[in-house]
Amino acid sequence: MFITFEGPEGSGKSTQIRLLADYLRLNGYRVDTLREPGGTSIGDQIRGVLHDTANTDMVPMTEVMLYSASRAQLVAACIRPALSEGRIVLCDRFADSTLAYQGYGRGLDMGVLATLTAFATGSLRPDLTILLDMDVRHGLSRRRDEGQEMNRLDLEAVSFHERVREGYHVLAAADPTRWVTLDADQPVSSVAADVRSTVLERLGRTSL
Amino acid sequence: MFITFEGPEGSGKSTQIRLLADYLRLNGYRVDTLREPGGTSIGDQIRGVLHDTANTDMVPMTEVMLYSASRAQLVAACIRPALSEGRIVLCDRFADSTLAYQGYGRGLDMGVLATLTAFATGSLRPDLTILLDMDVRHGLSRRRDEGQEMNRLDLEAVSFHERVREGYHVLAAADPTRWVTLDADQPVSSVAADVRSTVLERLGRTSL
Repeated sequence: MFITFEGPEGSGKSTQIRLLADYLRLNGYRVDTLREPGGTSIGDQIRGVLHDTANTDMVPMTEVMLYSASRAQLVAACIRPALSEGRIVLCDRFADSTLAYQGYGRGLDMGVLATLTAFATGSLRPDLTILLDMDVRHGLSRRRDEGQEMNRLDLEAVSFHERVREGYHVLAAADPTRWVTLDADQPVSSVAADVRSTVLERLGRTSL
Repeated sequence: MFITFEGPEGSGKSTQIRLLADYLRLNGYRVDTLREPGGTSIGDQIRGVLHDTANTDMVPMTEVMLYSASRAQLVAACIRPALSEGRIVLCDRFADSTLAYQGYGRGLDMGVLATLTAFATGSLRPDLTILLDMDVRHGLSRRRDEGQEMNRLDLEAVSFHERVREGYHVLAAADPTRWVTLDADQPVSSVAADVRSTVLERLGRTSL
């Protein structure tokens, strides 16, 4: 089972992935946690280029190609092998981030992005995508308050992040079988309970 | 005028570009010399990932996406601005390298590569492409003899470089208006004379 987490910066994706992975492992599942961009040695080198705040002159097409490069490596080296061994893969961002950030956020052609995404993933799609939805300003300020380093994308205007959020809503509405939208503007433990029950339902269980 | 140089490693592309640029500048032309991958700060960071001999597990799609990312940045930040100012741009490798190395060399789908190339370049094509053709083993040994650092691609098998060379021949034969194939297995000064006369002809001059 391939589960991806999407949402704005500061929505708690990495925390929720860690909590869900712990829960599933305690109950006997074999789980891999990955993140984008990165997740492989080569991907982490690409992540460095993407997040470097000095690279302000990066053109949108370069950006999307770099995300796609990191994704192609992650799919081939980690995700497909893990899925073929029957493991559960939890991934912090995946192809939908490209559609939301580069498509809705930056205005790149959605057809071009869909083509690049299909090339990078070999048309692999998540079984379940959990959108941790929250107010954009709240997410960004949470990130600042936690003393996390602001990367190149965090520094974009609030209006950019608003367009990304709206993009996520459009994507989720267009494919309700795959997407589940959760309110991430709650305490971590409440969100974690929502995540767990969503995943249990997909695993065909009511409890573990 | 946008002129690209293609050919195997060790065929003398960078030397010939330097000599041609000097010659054109002495004769009053404004010339930019660029190289792929790289040519911009972001592109040089990407070049580092591509050439790192530790990255032996890089999958072909990641490789082509990284070349495309570097190319998109180079086209947008350097090539198009220079051409619009009437400058002559000499580029060490361009999109044809992707077709030769990833297509003929690695066997990636040519349609996918053509699509990626069009995205990265915005369908910009060189006015003239000079293929410095030479025996593959000779090129590789020349590179070694000159004490140049061997990058990740140099370490590929000779059969890979043979396929690349044959790919170049196919590409050149398919578009004889754009491509000129020169024998690079001659002294540097002879190749330089061939390059000069080729470019002069395209500039509509017999001498400068």
